[in-house]
Amino acid sequence: MAKANVKEQIVTTSLQLLHSKGFNATSVQDITDAAGVPKGSFYNHFSSKEALGLEVLQRYTEGVGQLATPLQDLSLAPRQRLQQYFERMIAGNASNCFHFGCLLGNFSTELSNQIPAMRSAMRDAYSGSVAALAAVIADGQQDGSINADVPAAELAGFVNDAWQGAVLRAKSEQSSEPLERFVRMVLGRILT
Amino acid sequence: MAKANVKEQIVTTSLQLLHSKGFNATSVQDITDAAGVPKGSFYNHFSSKEALGLEVLQRYTEGVGQLATPLQDLSLAPRQRLQQYFERMIAGNASNCFHFGCLLGNFSTELSNQIPAMRSAMRDAYSGSVAALAAVIADGQQDGSINADVPAAELAGFVNDAWQGAVLRAKSEQSSEPLERFVRMVLGRILT
Repeated sequence: MAKANVKEQIVTTSLQLLHSKGFNATSVQDITDAAGVPKGSFYNHFSSKEALGLEVLQRYTEGVGQLATPLQDLSLAPRQRLQQYFERMIAGNASNCFHFGCLLGNFSTELSNQIPAMRSAMRDAYSGSVAALAAVIADGQQDGSINADVPAAELAGFVNDAWQGAVLRAKSEQSSEPLERFVRMVLGRILT
Repeated sequence: MAKANVKEQIVTTSLQLLHSKGFNATSVQDITDAAGVPKGSFYNHFSSKEALGLEVLQRYTEGVGQLATPLQDLSLAPRQRLQQYFERMIAGNASNCFHFGCLLGNFSTELSNQIPAMRSAMRDAYSGSVAALAAVIADGQQDGSINADVPAAELAGFVNDAWQGAVLRAKSEQSSEPLERFVRMVLGRILT
């Protein structure tokens, strides 16, 4: 396998393993076995498992960014943008039967107190999500479809965190219900 | 050390270690070293690390239950009960500088897909929290201090999950701000 392909194979395999099993429950040996590459090749591409974890987080965040394209779709009304975004995010969770949760949330609880560079990357990822949500909420406040009594950034921060909580609960319940409740509450009571 | 004391020493030490470092990042050796007991003694008391994890989760849940006593204090108005409960929960997180998160939330993301018995124990713990919140919210709906347009159980489920999300974010930000925002939003906009 060409060198670039080995690296890509390791990242792709790790994304699946770290998402489903977690960071500390997955060894470098698990990864190289699942990727079908020699264990020694791992350290040709990554200085450590932490370095791989950061690359996996970045890859995952890019994927979530693609799910968020409805937030930028100005042909839709602000609340419709949010509705479509949440639907896509729920479908993403449904693709693994709500068993995996959000990699960002998983790493937040598992690694925030273990790997400072990971915590920093997670902060950036959350900032990006909150900014994208806040822009849509501000549009809704501008056109009167969302109550403007609370600043958009405050609402967006709360909604971002509440989503993470709903995903965490959906993972522990192995059910879509917490995510559906999140949408009912956010679009039916909070962003109204 | 007497046998009962060894077990208690292991549980107390593990509660601290599993909360701060996580389940999979902590080995039985880490636990017995920190507890100052022989490694072999671990298996006199626990059939596995999973069995210890379940006991630690139960111990933690009992502690959270003690923090929740304001929810049962009928001398307070319903919204005051909630306010005092949230203040206690924030103080609990502040005691470790927001670095540890909630053990229940941490285990939800780390272990839901790994240990079925743990998932089942977490479901029970969440059910208990939601029921306690729902009872207070229902009281508030009864006396008119909380809007009754959404059933108390729905509101309580959402608030429970949003709290977990706020704690997760507070852990990744190492800051109280997500928890303070949670209280502002829940008492200022959702349960009004």
